Amino acid sequence: MQLFIPGPVTVSPEVAAAQAQPMIGHRGSDFETLFARIQPKLRQVFATRNRVYISTSSGTGLQEAAVRNCVGRCCLNLVNGAFSERWHEITPANGKEGIKLEAPWGQAIHPEQVEKALAQGGFDAVTVVHNETSTGVMNPLAEIAAVVQRHPDVLLLVDAVSSLGGVAIDCDGPGLDVLLTSSQKCLGLPPGLAFCAVSDRALARARTVPNRGYYFDFLELEKYLLRNQTPATPAISLLFALDVQLDRMLAEGLSARYARHARLAARVQGWAAERYALFAEEGYRSLTVTTVTNTRQIDVRALNRHLRAQGMAISDGYGKLKGQTFRIAHMGDTTEADIERLLTAMDGFK
Amino acid sequence: MQLFIPGPVTVSPEVAAAQAQPMIGHRGSDFETLFARIQPKLRQVFATRNRVYISTSSGTGLQEAAVRNCVGRCCLNLVNGAFSERWHEITPANGKEGIKLEAPWGQAIHPEQVEKALAQGGFDAVTVVHNETSTGVMNPLAEIAAVVQRHPDVLLLVDAVSSLGGVAIDCDGPGLDVLLTSSQKCLGLPPGLAFCAVSDRALARARTVPNRGYYFDFLELEKYLLRNQTPATPAISLLFALDVQLDRMLAEGLSARYARHARLAARVQGWAAERYALFAEEGYRSLTVTTVTNTRQIDVRALNRHLRAQGMAISDGYGKLKGQTFRIAHMGDTTEADIERLLTAMDGFK
Repeated sequence: MQLFIPGPVTVSPEVAAAQAQPMIGHRGSDFETLFARIQPKLRQVFATRNRVYISTSSGTGLQEAAVRNCVGRCCLNLVNGAFSERWHEITPANGKEGIKLEAPWGQAIHPEQVEKALAQGGFDAVTVVHNETSTGVMNPLAEIAAVVQRHPDVLLLVDAVSSLGGVAIDCDGPGLDVLLTSSQKCLGLPPGLAFCAVSDRALARARTVPNRGYYFDFLELEKYLLRNQTPATPAISLLFALDVQLDRMLAEGLSARYARHARLAARVQGWAAERYALFAEEGYRSLTVTTVTNTRQIDVRALNRHLRAQGMAISDGYGKLKGQTFRIAHMGDTTEADIERLLTAMDGFK
Repeated sequence: MQLFIPGPVTVSPEVAAAQAQPMIGHRGSDFETLFARIQPKLRQVFATRNRVYISTSSGTGLQEAAVRNCVGRCCLNLVNGAFSERWHEITPANGKEGIKLEAPWGQAIHPEQVEKALAQGGFDAVTVVHNETSTGVMNPLAEIAAVVQRHPDVLLLVDAVSSLGGVAIDCDGPGLDVLLTSSQKCLGLPPGLAFCAVSDRALARARTVPNRGYYFDFLELEKYLLRNQTPATPAISLLFALDVQLDRMLAEGLSARYARHARLAARVQGWAAERYALFAEEGYRSLTVTTVTNTRQIDVRALNRHLRAQGMAISDGYGKLKGQTFRIAHMGDTTEADIERLLTAMDGFK
C-alpha cells in the first residue's frame, strides 16, 4: 500500500530493512558509535547548531516535553487546527496556564495577532504548529518568530511534525527555542521516534522550571547526550533506520528535497483547484499536505476504497472536517511518479 | 552478537524481520485489526483480565505514568537497586512526595518492612520493582501484595520490566493495580514499546488525580483503546514485531517459557556459585538475571572483550557495582545451548 496520508508515510524498503539488523546494547560502544554518527547528520537536517534530542515517543510526547521544560506558569498557544489545539490541551494537563490565540481552521495565524497578544505580557513561551496537518495550513513561522524575538523572555516552541525535512526551516536565525518533529512524516521513517532541537536558553529555562518529570526532562536528555546515550532504553531498531535514512536524505540533498516537496505541492494543488477547491488560505498552503474542500460532495470513503483497490490510500478530513474535506500528503520519499499515479487513479473515480 | 546483557536482548530473526513489513496508517482498519489481534494475546501474557495499554516509550516512561496517574499526594517507594531508586527520583520530579523504604543493594524488600511503613498511613500507593535488574534480586511480590491489600486505599504499582514474560506473575489474584513491563527484556522484542496492565480502581484513581499530562494519561489511553487505537501515533513496526512474538511465546507455552527461565537461572547460578559468589540474598535470586560477585577480582572489561571475540556479551555491574560484580541475563528467547556456549567461553577466560 502506497500511503498518501499525512503520516505515517511509506518507508523505503532499504530503510525498513535496516530495522531488522541484530540488536545491540544501549550502554555499549556499538551504540555510542551509532548515536555519535547520527548526531551531526540530524543537526544538518535540522539546520541547527543546537543539540537535537532523540525521544522514543511520538511528536505529541515532545509537545508535552516543551511545555513541561519551558513554561513556568503561562504560555500563549497559537491554535488553528487539531494539533495546535492538542498542544493547548496538553498545557493545562501539565499544570500550566495556556492562553489561546485562535484562527479559524483553514486560516493562518498572522504575526500581528501574535504581537497584539504578547503585548498583554506575562507569557513564558509561545507554542506554534508550523504546518497544521489537519487543515493543510502552513503558518508564517519566520514572521511569527520575528515578533516573538522582540520579547526577550518569551521562548518560541515550534511543532514542525509534518514539515521538517520537507520544507526549509531556519532554526538558528530567528532563534527557535524548541523545534520538534517526529519520524513518520517528512523524514520518511517508521513512527516511534521524535526529535527536538533545543536552544541554550531553553535548556537554561528548564533549570528553573520544577516538575519536569523524568522521561521528557531536557536536563536528563542533555546529560546522556553528552555521552552519546539516552536516559532510558531507546528504540534501537528505529535508530538503525534513522541512520540509513539520514544518509539517503543528505545524498538527495536538502535543497533538492525541499524543491521536490514544493513541486509535488504545486502539482497536487493545481490538480485540486481545477476539480475542487483548496481549504487553506491562499499564501499559506502547506508544501507537504494538501487539504481539498470536497465541493463535489464525493463519497470520500468510496474514493478511498477505489484507491485501495489500486494499492493507494489518502486521508479523509480531520475530525470535524471529515467528509467535507480530504487530504493528500506529498511528503517524505514520495516522487512525482507516485503523485501522477495517484492523481490518475483519483481522476478514474466516478 | 548474542546478548546476555539484561536487555536489550537478542531478537529472533523472524521477529526482527517482521519490523520491515510495509507501513500502515494508525487511524485505519488495517491498524485496528492488528491492534485488536494483539490485545487478547497481550492480556494472556500478562495473565490478566485488566486492560493492557501499549505505550511507545521505555518502561521508565510507564514508571512515570504510574506515578502521575495513581498518586495524588504521596507514595511509598520500595528501593533496593538502581531502577527502584529511579522510580523514587521520578516521584518528586512529578510533584509527588515519595517516602523511601530502603533495603541494601543485593537484599530483598521484606513484607514486614512494608507492613510497618504502611502503618504510618497517608500513602496513595506503593511502588515496587519486582526484579531489580541492577542487583539480580527478585522481591517477594505476592507477599508484598498481600500486605498492601490490607490497606484498601493504597494502590500497588509494580515494575516487572525484567521479569514479565519470563516468570509467572499473578496480577489479578493479589490485585496488582499497575503492572508494567517493556519490550526488550523477557518478551524478546526490540526496545521502544512498554506495556501496563491497569486495574479498574487504578483507572478510577486517575480520574481524581490532576496534572496527569497527556502522553501517558491513562484516561486518554483508555479512550483510544476502546476503539483499538492509541492517542498518538505508535511505533507501528514494533507492533508488527510484537504481534509475531506474542504468537511465538504462546506457541512455546507460558508455563514452558517460565520453566525454561528457571532452568537457565539454576544452571547459571550453580556455575557462578562454584566459581565466584552470588550477589543476591539467598531465596530472592532472580530467575532472569544473575549478578555474580567478582570474588576472583577478574577484569570484567577484559572478560567482555574475550566474549566479544566469540560473538557474545554480558554486562558489567550496574553503577556503583561496576567491577565488583558482573551480570548474566538469561531471559527472552535464550536457550540452554546458548547458555552452555556462554559458560564454556567464560571458563576459557584466563
